[in-house]
Amino acid sequence: MASDFRLKEQLPELTNQIVQSYTDVGSINHLGHCPLPKYEDVISAIEDLKEIIYPGYRRREKLHLGNVTYHVGDLVDRLDDVLTTQIARALQHETRVTTKTEPCGEEQVDFEAKGQAMTLEFLRRIPDLRSVLATDVQAAFDGDPACQNKDEVIFCYPGLEAVTVHRLAHELYKIDVPFIPRMMAEWAHKQTGIDIHPGAEIGHHFFIDHGTGVVIGETCKIGNHVKLYQGVTLGALSFPTDSDGKLVRNVKRHPTLEDRVIIYASATVLGGKTVIGHDAVVGSSVWLTKSVAPHTTVTIESPKLRMQAELPEDLDAAANYQI
Amino acid sequence: MASDFRLKEQLPELTNQIVQSYTDVGSINHLGHCPLPKYEDVISAIEDLKEIIYPGYRRREKLHLGNVTYHVGDLVDRLDDVLTTQIARALQHETRVTTKTEPCGEEQVDFEAKGQAMTLEFLRRIPDLRSVLATDVQAAFDGDPACQNKDEVIFCYPGLEAVTVHRLAHELYKIDVPFIPRMMAEWAHKQTGIDIHPGAEIGHHFFIDHGTGVVIGETCKIGNHVKLYQGVTLGALSFPTDSDGKLVRNVKRHPTLEDRVIIYASATVLGGKTVIGHDAVVGSSVWLTKSVAPHTTVTIESPKLRMQAELPEDLDAAANYQI
Amino acid sequence: MASDFRLKEQLPELTNQIVQSYTDVGSINHLGHCPLPKYEDVISAIEDLKEIIYPGYRRREKLHLGNVTYHVGDLVDRLDDVLTTQIARALQHETRVTTKTEPCGEEQVDFEAKGQAMTLEFLRRIPDLRSVLATDVQAAFDGDPACQNKDEVIFCYPGLEAVTVHRLAHELYKIDVPFIPRMMAEWAHKQTGIDIHPGAEIGHHFFIDHGTGVVIGETCKIGNHVKLYQGVTLGALSFPTDSDGKLVRNVKRHPTLEDRVIIYASATVLGGKTVIGHDAVVGSSVWLTKSVAPHTTVTIESPKLRMQAELPEDLDAAANYQI
Repeated sequence: MASDFRLKEQLPELTNQIVQSYTDVGSINHLGHCPLPKYEDVISAIEDLKEIIYPGYRRREKLHLGNVTYHVGDLVDRLDDVLTTQIARALQHETRVTTKTEPCGEEQVDFEAKGQAMTLEFLRRIPDLRSVLATDVQAAFDGDPACQNKDEVIFCYPGLEAVTVHRLAHELYKIDVPFIPRMMAEWAHKQTGIDIHPGAEIGHHFFIDHGTGVVIGETCKIGNHVKLYQGVTLGALSFPTDSDGKLVRNVKRHPTLEDRVIIYASATVLGGKTVIGHDAVVGSSVWLTKSVAPHTTVTIESPKLRMQAELPEDLDAAANYQI
Repeated sequence: MASDFRLKEQLPELTNQIVQSYTDVGSINHLGHCPLPKYEDVISAIEDLKEIIYPGYRRREKLHLGNVTYHVGDLVDRLDDVLTTQIARALQHETRVTTKTEPCGEEQVDFEAKGQAMTLEFLRRIPDLRSVLATDVQAAFDGDPACQNKDEVIFCYPGLEAVTVHRLAHELYKIDVPFIPRMMAEWAHKQTGIDIHPGAEIGHHFFIDHGTGVVIGETCKIGNHVKLYQGVTLGALSFPTDSDGKLVRNVKRHPTLEDRVIIYASATVLGGKTVIGHDAVVGSSVWLTKSVAPHTTVTIESPKLRMQAELPEDLDAAANYQI
Repeated sequence: MASDFRLKEQLPELTNQIVQSYTDVGSINHLGHCPLPKYEDVISAIEDLKEIIYPGYRRREKLHLGNVTYHVGDLVDRLDDVLTTQIARALQHETRVTTKTEPCGEEQVDFEAKGQAMTLEFLRRIPDLRSVLATDVQAAFDGDPACQNKDEVIFCYPGLEAVTVHRLAHELYKIDVPFIPRMMAEWAHKQTGIDIHPGAEIGHHFFIDHGTGVVIGETCKIGNHVKLYQGVTLGALSFPTDSDGKLVRNVKRHPTLEDRVIIYASATVLGGKTVIGHDAVVGSSVWLTKSVAPHTTVTIESPKLRMQAELPEDLDAAANYQI
């Protein structure tokens, strides 16, 4: 070890400069006694919820109807504690942000109670969620010729992973749990490359194949039996601003897809007033900002392509498409 | 802790409703005595295989020809056990799915024996795999001006990560190991954003740069010295269905790329009959469903673009391209 | 366990064949006494740096100005040791690669000393980095109507994650630390799907929304208040080669974006001479290889689309856009 210990003596001063910056640039540090939701706990809750929804796949082996109640009961009990605390923290955080106060101490009690009520309301929805997710698994199997069996879908399809987390986050979103649904959605985004805002409403038998790069905006409405491929964007066409030029939040900015719509790879559909009618098909790489009638197939006119034989002097030209 | 313990009393009933749903919605839970392949063990096998293929990089330091045999011998012995068990489980699962029986107990012995034979067959291929992967590392270094040295490629290029896992998964696929190759491929997809089906046949000196969003379908045939960039899709043009309208699996649905083909970012090439001839170049964002002759360069005609000076009243128009 | 122990006896021979390949194919194993940078340590350094930059979010709770100095001082002390060692290893590696020698033993001392000096130089920049990152957080909040508060950005926006790691890697790149900046950048790429080369120069108030598939090349220059969306490529148009046909490294190959430029989803901008003027807007899916004047809005002419009512006999046609 050749490090010079006199240089080490610079560290305290260096540390003080960093700590000073917590006062000078206070907007990106959280110093204070009101705890934020804990990322690790929110993620562990997702993992426990997946074990409850798809028992016998990823974690505990040799489960059967004779022992599964103990396993699930234990997970439910733990989830009740973890989610109660994390939702309470999220509610407290929301109050702090909206009221610009530090609501710690007494009021905290109410946050805990409200958090527990929301947690139970959420956990009660799991059986129904399982029914819908079973249709998503079926849709993946029916829609992918490379799929050998449904266990493959549950084990390793990123589309199902993203939709599973989305359906959980969306239930929390519907009962007005702040913050945590977004944490869950971004965790799924990181796992799968599929970015679904917790606000999006999605029907049953939903399948995203491959999925990397898919973006589904907050105010999308998606019907039943809809199928999306990698790189599809369901986005906003413009952001209305108020008289002060501030973005208006919570208006419908993203499209509506009716039942049995299929949207192929890298297609882009924009706008809150854009409606893709039932049984319509949007082809690969199509760019759409207008509505499409039911039973319509939309494709790009085979685009004009320049074909050139590659002569020696064209070798450079060839390089001209390098990224 | 403000949670109300009377609310806690609702948990057992809530648990029972969830457990009831395992009977009502039985298609997405695995309850029974036949274990499935274990995801964690399959992943740990990939990590061990990478340590054997690229020793001295990620895990164990100070390896040299004097001690590496002990290190690798230990890894090989462990891999033999882990893969034998996991392949046996995958074979058992396949039998269960195809015969709709619960083949546990006696027959299991045969699965283990077959699993061990397949494992040895697979491990024997590692030296040849190393030879091919060395050409992939060379191709990455030769093809990326930002690359300083080959160790960089082995340490952190997602393209090499995806191709390494693919070549391993493809060997298992070729000796008819079910299920596990897909688990491996989707793990690599999660790590890199590159989705290569284990069935795809890929020649030597293969390089994927950046890689996020690349999709390579099950029946692709890719020659030697081929280079792909981020967002390239090598996909299917249509899915043939049988007389009952069920998808026909295992027909060539994806394109063929001959030697020295280069496909730039976000290009889409579709169809099992589509052949991109040797030394052809497909430009960025091209959309192709037909074959291309050798030595041809295909590019989009510089697309018509609307340019408008942004006058005050156009500021809203500007917003019209917002996603 | 049905495995046949006589088969086990094949493992030593199999191991020897693998070890033999380390001599036959020596380019992808690192056997020898000069250690490479350690991936896990570089990643743990990133995590410690994020804890210093955004204290109170992810890791330690209940930090306040009374105790944060101890927490940060401890992290800084550890970082000083870890980075000193890893930078020394990277410098040693660079010498080995460029001089084709094995510079171990004596010289190592100098690498350690130089590594420590670079580490201190780097740590000294953290307060300034916090000021810039605070503008990035603000830009994300101002630019995303779905964003409820700035803590959401710090907790879970992949765009901020990628930019945070980029700004750290870029500082190391500027003081000529080899290798480690690329390791950091590819780690962020894996986390977020956003691939920013450490060499890219990026101004303040930078925001990448959604982000999956974004690629920003080594020689990009990006001004202040710039906004990018998912799938945007800022790439090279061609790679100049020297008289031997070898790629010329370190020339400007990637575009320049001036202040307040917005580039929407899946747009591609290529070339080292391409300049997007200040306040210009590049629409979704635009493909650009030429410069654009300030205050210009560039969009694709609504592309010609084929719309067809889906009659029974067209159902196959519909399938024709399947990926």
